[in-house]
Amino acid sequence: MAGSTFGTIFRISTWGESHGKGVGVVIDGCPAGLPLEEADIQKYLDLRKPGQNKYTTKRNESDRVEIFSGIFEGKTTGTPISLLVRNEDQRSRDYGSISELYRPGHADYGFDQKYGFRDYRGGGRSSGRETTARVAAGAVAIKILNSLGITLHAYASSIGPVSADPSRLDFSHTYESPIRMPDREAEAKAFEYVKGCIKSLDSSGGTVTCQAQGLPAGLGEPVFDKLDANLAKALMSIGAVKAVEIGDGTKAALAKGSENNDWYALNEEGIPYKSTNHSGGILGGISDGSPLVIKVSFKPTSSIAAPQPMLGRDGKLHENVSIHGRHDPLIVPRAVVVVEAMTALTLMDLLLLNMSSQMKYLQQIYHPPLD
Amino acid sequence: MAGSTFGTIFRISTWGESHGKGVGVVIDGCPAGLPLEEADIQKYLDLRKPGQNKYTTKRNESDRVEIFSGIFEGKTTGTPISLLVRNEDQRSRDYGSISELYRPGHADYGFDQKYGFRDYRGGGRSSGRETTARVAAGAVAIKILNSLGITLHAYASSIGPVSADPSRLDFSHTYESPIRMPDREAEAKAFEYVKGCIKSLDSSGGTVTCQAQGLPAGLGEPVFDKLDANLAKALMSIGAVKAVEIGDGTKAALAKGSENNDWYALNEEGIPYKSTNHSGGILGGISDGSPLVIKVSFKPTSSIAAPQPMLGRDGKLHENVSIHGRHDPLIVPRAVVVVEAMTALTLMDLLLLNMSSQMKYLQQIYHPPLD
Amino acid sequence: MAGSTFGTIFRISTWGESHGKGVGVVIDGCPAGLPLEEADIQKYLDLRKPGQNKYTTKRNESDRVEIFSGIFEGKTTGTPISLLVRNEDQRSRDYGSISELYRPGHADYGFDQKYGFRDYRGGGRSSGRETTARVAAGAVAIKILNSLGITLHAYASSIGPVSADPSRLDFSHTYESPIRMPDREAEAKAFEYVKGCIKSLDSSGGTVTCQAQGLPAGLGEPVFDKLDANLAKALMSIGAVKAVEIGDGTKAALAKGSENNDWYALNEEGIPYKSTNHSGGILGGISDGSPLVIKVSFKPTSSIAAPQPMLGRDGKLHENVSIHGRHDPLIVPRAVVVVEAMTALTLMDLLLLNMSSQMKYLQQIYHPPLD
Amino acid sequence: MAGSTFGTIFRISTWGESHGKGVGVVIDGCPAGLPLEEADIQKYLDLRKPGQNKYTTKRNESDRVEIFSGIFEGKTTGTPISLLVRNEDQRSRDYGSISELYRPGHADYGFDQKYGFRDYRGGGRSSGRETTARVAAGAVAIKILNSLGITLHAYASSIGPVSADPSRLDFSHTYESPIRMPDREAEAKAFEYVKGCIKSLDSSGGTVTCQAQGLPAGLGEPVFDKLDANLAKALMSIGAVKAVEIGDGTKAALAKGSENNDWYALNEEGIPYKSTNHSGGILGGISDGSPLVIKVSFKPTSSIAAPQPMLGRDGKLHENVSIHGRHDPLIVPRAVVVVEAMTALTLMDLLLLNMSSQMKYLQQIYHPPLD
Repeated sequence: MAGSTFGTIFRISTWGESHGKGVGVVIDGCPAGLPLEEADIQKYLDLRKPGQNKYTTKRNESDRVEIFSGIFEGKTTGTPISLLVRNEDQRSRDYGSISELYRPGHADYGFDQKYGFRDYRGGGRSSGRETTARVAAGAVAIKILNSLGITLHAYASSIGPVSADPSRLDFSHTYESPIRMPDREAEAKAFEYVKGCIKSLDSSGGTVTCQAQGLPAGLGEPVFDKLDANLAKALMSIGAVKAVEIGDGTKAALAKGSENNDWYALNEEGIPYKSTNHSGGILGGISDGSPLVIKVSFKPTSSIAAPQPMLGRDGKLHENVSIHGRHDPLIVPRAVVVVEAMTALTLMDLLLLNMSSQMKYLQQIYHPPLD
Repeated sequence: MAGSTFGTIFRISTWGESHGKGVGVVIDGCPAGLPLEEADIQKYLDLRKPGQNKYTTKRNESDRVEIFSGIFEGKTTGTPISLLVRNEDQRSRDYGSISELYRPGHADYGFDQKYGFRDYRGGGRSSGRETTARVAAGAVAIKILNSLGITLHAYASSIGPVSADPSRLDFSHTYESPIRMPDREAEAKAFEYVKGCIKSLDSSGGTVTCQAQGLPAGLGEPVFDKLDANLAKALMSIGAVKAVEIGDGTKAALAKGSENNDWYALNEEGIPYKSTNHSGGILGGISDGSPLVIKVSFKPTSSIAAPQPMLGRDGKLHENVSIHGRHDPLIVPRAVVVVEAMTALTLMDLLLLNMSSQMKYLQQIYHPPLD
Repeated sequence: MAGSTFGTIFRISTWGESHGKGVGVVIDGCPAGLPLEEADIQKYLDLRKPGQNKYTTKRNESDRVEIFSGIFEGKTTGTPISLLVRNEDQRSRDYGSISELYRPGHADYGFDQKYGFRDYRGGGRSSGRETTARVAAGAVAIKILNSLGITLHAYASSIGPVSADPSRLDFSHTYESPIRMPDREAEAKAFEYVKGCIKSLDSSGGTVTCQAQGLPAGLGEPVFDKLDANLAKALMSIGAVKAVEIGDGTKAALAKGSENNDWYALNEEGIPYKSTNHSGGILGGISDGSPLVIKVSFKPTSSIAAPQPMLGRDGKLHENVSIHGRHDPLIVPRAVVVVEAMTALTLMDLLLLNMSSQMKYLQQIYHPPLD
Repeated sequence: MAGSTFGTIFRISTWGESHGKGVGVVIDGCPAGLPLEEADIQKYLDLRKPGQNKYTTKRNESDRVEIFSGIFEGKTTGTPISLLVRNEDQRSRDYGSISELYRPGHADYGFDQKYGFRDYRGGGRSSGRETTARVAAGAVAIKILNSLGITLHAYASSIGPVSADPSRLDFSHTYESPIRMPDREAEAKAFEYVKGCIKSLDSSGGTVTCQAQGLPAGLGEPVFDKLDANLAKALMSIGAVKAVEIGDGTKAALAKGSENNDWYALNEEGIPYKSTNHSGGILGGISDGSPLVIKVSFKPTSSIAAPQPMLGRDGKLHENVSIHGRHDPLIVPRAVVVVEAMTALTLMDLLLLNMSSQMKYLQQIYHPPLD
C-alpha cells in the first residue's frame, strides 16, 4: 500500500499524476441514500482549479469531474464512487529542460532514491495536481457533514508577513477574495506583498485556518486515532505543509496551565459553555463540543523563476538554473479548499467510527427482539 | 478499532489505563533475529518513569517491563512481542472527590459524551500512563534503527518562555538534565521558571525537538503516508501536544521561496550536500537524506492545584475546585523519550513499507531462477 | 503486521506461544456499556481446555483468564480489553528430541525458511494453544451477539467416516458429548472409531458445522469483505482446517440452478420464508435472513505416536521417528468452540461495519438539527 | 470501507457496476520498475470476456482496458495504477421487468435490506462484471510473480457431475477448451451435460482447481493472515463460490494422520522432496515449498430462464417468473481466470509482507554502515 489510501470506513484511494491522463479517486464506504450529482463536487473543484486570477498559475484546466460509479437514480448506492478528472493542459516540454536536475524544495531527489527512477514531469504523483482528487472526495464528505448540521470554513489567515485580523474576519468575503483572505484590509496589504514576490521572480508562504461548527462532542478515538492526530496526518499530507496547530498551537507551549485551561461559564439560560477555546475544540484527542480550530503553515512555492543552483542526476552542481513552468506564486489561495476537504474527510471517517462506541447505538440500529 | 493500533507492518497495539492492573503493548511485525532482552526496553522506561525528581510527579512506580512472548533464545522470533508493565502506586481515592466534575483541559467531558460513561480515575485510557506502552515498543524500534545506522535524539528545546540556544546544545547533557534541556544556561533559567510555576500551584508548557541522523533518502510514501504526515499523526497522538512542526515549521509560512529552498553545495571531496536544512530532512513527504528535524509543542499540564471553576456532570458550575492528584508541573521532561519513541515507531514502519518500492528489492530477496 | 490482527472495527490482536509465559489477546473496538466479567469468558475457555477426557490431550492446564484492562465497574469502557491466560504445564523437554527434525504435517520447515529460525517447542506460535486467545475474544463477541438476539451453535458433524445424521441432531447433547457430537447413535460409532485410531497410535480428522440464528439480513460487504469471504478467512485461519463450505458447499458444484436456487413460500400468516436453505444464509456475500450454515473440515492431528520418516535440519532423512508429546487424537472436539468463536468475531465486525451502510443510521445516531 | 479493497501492501480497490459507465481498479503498492503495457492486461481480460462461445453469455463486450496512471516510459513508477474498462452492451431494459422482484440465488433481497435500496440492473455491484477489475489487477500480479519464477495455472476440474481425470490433464488444452477443461474425454462429456442444461433452460455448477509452481517456502503469516486463510477469503469473495479446499480439502476430514501426513523422500541426487502433497503446499498456513493446490466450488448460475416463483418487494409471491437476461449457463469457464487472478493477488501481497520477516532482509536492502 503505497500510501494512496486515507480513512478506515469512509476510505478514499486517489490515483493520477500531474502529466498523465488524469487524476481520480475511489470513495469506498459512503453511506447509501445521499443525493449526489456532479454539480455537488464541481463547485469545490472550481474553487481549487488553476488559472483563476493573477495570483495563481496560468495553467488553464477546466477540471470537470465525471462520476463513473456508485450513484443510481441520483443517490449514492453504498458502493464505491469513482470520480475522474482529466488532465488537459500539460506541456511536459516545460519540464524537459530540468528533467535531469533535482529542483530545490521538491521531492525529485527522494523519488529517485525511492524508486530508482523519476517522473520528472512536474512532480508526477507528488504534484499539487493530486489534491484535485482529495477535493472531489472531500465535497462528498462535506455534503454528508452539512446534512448532519456540521459546517466547515477555511481561509487564508496569513500571506507571508501579512495576517488577517481575527476581529475583522468577514467569511462572506473569503471566496470573493482571489487570495481567500476574509479581511479586506489585510487582503490589500497581501496583494502588495505578493506582487513584490512575483516581481522578484519569488514566491510566498502563508497559513490557512479551518474552523468547524456543529461537531458533536465525543469524536475521535482515545489513543492513536485521536481527532487531532488524524487531522494532523490529513493536513500534513498536503504538499508544502510544514506545521499543523490545534487551537492555540505553538502558543500553548509558552502558556501556564491557569492560562491555557478553558473554563466553563453559564449563559443567560444557565446552559454551560466554554468561555474560551484555547483547546481548539479538542481535548484528549476527542471533540469537546466547541468549534474546531486548526491552522496549517504552507511553505512558499518551491518552483521559482529566479535562478538557483541545482544538483543534477550526474552528481554535479548546475548554477543559476531557472524553472520555467507556470507555477503559483503562493500555494495558499488554492490550498484553502484542500484544507477544508481533508478536514471534512477526517471528520467523516471518525463520525462513522464513533457509531460503534456504545452498545446503545447497536441496539438503536439492530433492535434486539424483546424476550 | 478504537484507535489503539499504530503502524501498517511494524504494528503496535497498546492497552491499559492509569488505574487498572497495568499497561501493555503487543508488537506485531517485528522482524525475526533481533537480539532483545528486557534491559533493552527498561532503559527507556526508566527515562519516562515518574518520581525522578522535583520537576516530575511524586507518584512512584518502578515501571518494570515483562516480555511475555515473541522471544526465543534471546532473539525475536518474528511473532508478536507482548510487553507488560504493571501499575503499582495508584491511589484512585485522590480522584474520588472530582469524579463527578469535568476537569478543565482534560478529555473527561468528551469521554462522557462518547461512551455514555467515564473512568474518572486519573483519565483512564487518555492518561499519560498509556505512553509507557509506546516507549516500550519504541525501544524495540530504536534498537532496530540503530542496527541500521539510524540514530535519534530528542530534547527539551523550550520550557515556557525559556528556549535552548541551538548554538549551545550539548546532547551529552540531555539525560543528566532533570528537565532534559541540553543547554546548561537555558536549563538554569528554566529551573527558576518552573519553580515559580510550582510555587503558584501552576504548570508550564514547552517544546520537544527530535532529530534523526543516518536516515536513507526515499522513506515515506508520496501521498497520505508521507513521512511528515505519519510523524504528525504519531506525535499529535501524544496527549497535550498542540502543534507539530517539520524543519522551519511555522516560520516557513513567513519565508519566500528563495529563502526557504535548500540548495546543494559540494564539499571538499566534491560530494554534494544540502547547505541548509529548512526542510527538516523531508521534501514532498519523502526523506531527502539530510537530518530529520521535528518540533512538538506541549501545552502546560492541565491538572493544577490552583482552584478553578469546573463543570459537573450535574450540569452545574462548581467554583474554586482544586485538583489534588500528584501531577507533573510540566509534561516536557518525561515526554522527551515518548517523542523519540513515536518518531522511531514511525520510521520503523516506513522503512519496512519502503522495502516493496522497487522490483530490484524483490529480486534481491527472492532470487528468481535465471532462465 | 505479521498477521496477528483480525477485524476492522471489532479488532483483536493475539499473542503468545505454546511454551512461552502465556497467550493473550487485546480486543480493540468493543462498544462501551457491555456488562463483562471473567466468568463470561471462562465458560468458553473451559470448553476448549485440554485434559477434559480420554479423547483429548492429557496436558492439564486450568486456562484461567485474567482481564487486565477495559472494564470499569463491571462494564466495558470502549477501550482495549486485554486478556491473559498463563501457560502452566509445558514440558518442553517432550520436544527436545525432535528439535532438529521437521515434523510431518507441521509448519516446522516453513517457519525455518520464513524466519531463518524456529521455535521447536510444540509449534510455538502455530500451536493450537494460540486459539485460546481467539476463544477468549470470541466469548466477548458472543455476549454482544446474544444481546442482539443472535445465537450460534457449533458441533462435530463428523469424525473420520462417521457422520451425525441431520435428522437426529439434539443440540442439548453437544456439550455433554466428549466429542461434541449431538447425535447419540453416531457418537457411539465415533467412539469406536477413535479408540481404534488411538490403539494404532494414529489420529482422525473430522468436520465441524456451525449455525447462527437471528442474523439480520444485509450483513457483509458486497465485494471482498463478503460475509462468506470473511468467514472463510476466519475459519481457514484455524490450524488444520483444509476446507470451508457455506450451505451446500461442494455439493453446489454438482447441482443445477433449478435445484440450487432457494425459493420463497408463504407461511400460514402469509409471511414469506425461504422454503430451502441451499445458500446457507448467504447470497452474494450478504446475509439473506435465513440461518447461517458453515462447515469446516479438519485434517487429522499431524502429531502421531506411530513411527514416521522425518526430514532433519541437516537435510537428511530420519526413519521411524515417533512423536512423544501429549497430543489430541482428534482436533475436532476442542475445535468446536474455536469455530464458534471465529464465526462470532466475524459477525461482530461486520455488524459494526454495517452500521455505516445507510444515511438513515447516521441520522438516527447524530440527530441533525431540524432547520 | 465497504469492502472494495483487497491486500495490505499490494492493495487493490475495485469500483463499478454491471450497468454503470464501466468498472475499474486502482492498484496501490505495485513496485517500481516493472515493464507494463495494456497488452499485458488485455490478454487476461480476453480470457474472461463474455460472448466467447455458446457456453457463455451472448452479451458482447470488447472489455478494452485503459491504463490511466502509474506508468512512465513503459514501466511502473511505484504510484497507483488506475485501470478502466468501459461497459458497452448493457440493455438495462432486460431487467426492468423484474426490478421489483427478488431473484432466487441473488443478493437482491440482502441489498435491499442493507442499503434500503437496490440497483436492480443485473445485480449492480454484486454482478460478475466486477471481476473484470480483479482480472486486470491480477494480470499485473501474475507478471511480477512470473518474473520471480512463480507460475500459476487454473482450469475447470469438473462441470456438474463430469470431472477431469487428473491422469489425463493436458494444460496446453485448457485455453483451447471453451469450458477450460484440460481433459479432452471429460470435456466431451461435459459438453453434452451442459447442452442438456441449456435445453432445459437450466444451469450447471462446477469446480475450478488452481495450482502454483515455484513458490518459495515461508510465505504466509502464522495466525490470521495464513496463506490458506487469505486465499480462502480471496476465492470465497468471488460470487457463486460455495467452498474452498486446500490440498485434499474435505477428504482430509476422512483420513487418519498416518495417511494425511506428507513424508519426505530423497531423490537420486539425495535432495529431499515431499513424496505426497496432501497439504496442497501449505502447512500451518505457510507455504511448504511444494506446489500450491486449491479447489473452488461454484454453484450453478442463479439466473435461469426456467420459470421460478419469486418474492416481490411488495411481500407477495409471484409464480412462474422467467429471467430473460443473457446469462452464462455455467460460471466456471469464465471464472477460471478470475480464480487465477485472485490467487496471484493473494500471493503477491504475502510475498511483499514476507520481506519484513527477517532482520537479514533489512540489512540486505539498507546496508547498515560498517562501524
